[in-house]
Amino acid sequence: MPDERPDDDAPRPWRILEQEPGEPMMLFRPRVDTVLHPRSGETFRRLVLETPDWVNVVARDERGRFVLVEQYRFGSGTVTLELPGGMIDLGEAHGDAARRELREETGHTGGRWTYLGSVQPNPAFHTNRCHHWLAEGCRPTEALDLDPGEDIAVRHLDEAELRAAIADGRVAHSLVLTALARVLDLRGPA
Amino acid sequence: MPDERPDDDAPRPWRILEQEPGEPMMLFRPRVDTVLHPRSGETFRRLVLETPDWVNVVARDERGRFVLVEQYRFGSGTVTLELPGGMIDLGEAHGDAARRELREETGHTGGRWTYLGSVQPNPAFHTNRCHHWLAEGCRPTEALDLDPGEDIAVRHLDEAELRAAIADGRVAHSLVLTALARVLDLRGPA
Repeated sequence: MPDERPDDDAPRPWRILEQEPGEPMMLFRPRVDTVLHPRSGETFRRLVLETPDWVNVVARDERGRFVLVEQYRFGSGTVTLELPGGMIDLGEAHGDAARRELREETGHTGGRWTYLGSVQPNPAFHTNRCHHWLAEGCRPTEALDLDPGEDIAVRHLDEAELRAAIADGRVAHSLVLTALARVLDLRGPA
Repeated sequence: MPDERPDDDAPRPWRILEQEPGEPMMLFRPRVDTVLHPRSGETFRRLVLETPDWVNVVARDERGRFVLVEQYRFGSGTVTLELPGGMIDLGEAHGDAARRELREETGHTGGRWTYLGSVQPNPAFHTNRCHHWLAEGCRPTEALDLDPGEDIAVRHLDEAELRAAIADGRVAHSLVLTALARVLDLRGPA
């Protein structure tokens, strides 16, 4: 790994001098850290969002169709197609959370489960990871179990339909794409 | 696209009854929307982070090596390897922002530029998109132009080294992976 900066001068963690927790904000708890630049010694204030880990599931039914959820999203202001997923509860194992979210949001259970690893949603300000799971051969066995604040429709897409939905922008959530990229070759402009 | 819910009952946008803007928080402006559930008529309060669009660049030098940036990240509390990128300035075209970020963070310029499309970083609460660019054959021609609050080292990785860095978790930022997935086949657990 050739480099303009030698390894013994590589970027290293910054010392946190002070942490100011803010009021919880539904999805996160913001925090402002006062940090020390390791080379210049200057201090800076940096925003951190303390965020619980998330999980999502590439679920395929017995016919190989991908099981997606269609819903209105408050950030983008658009209706999206996404993988089932959500926040991991306190103390819950991420594999259990994946099975729970798949069941609640789509009514699908069972199948062969494979862990696909995890990503950092955004290490610049989020503290969390998102875990990706693959469930193959799952079946609709339960009624949906949605919160009163959710309005979700289950959609089954074969691979060609899923690729079309990625190409036309209905599937555009970054964490959906990082999970799908572990199962499908997604090369080319979307 | 077979479905448990018919198309004329598909999830649709929720009416926003009220928006309460919060104080700007460095990277975002938070907003709390009071929204109307389109089926039940109940109201809910939802957090939105108004976020400027972002951009990042899959940059390869004349030898085909990927040009990455190594830096400490305040959210994850870890040193990461990422694609060069950042916030698009107000009124700036995303292609110009991509060239600017590559130059400032790595000193590389030139090459053949191809737009790779965009993703929604997180449509649940972010309002923005992240645009992905590919720059092939760029060269180190300038000094780095870092903010006082940055500490970045440029790293050049061939494809095998990049794949190893993804596998061992040093490259884990979701938006880096969505860009790379448009250039490399990333199938398999990371």
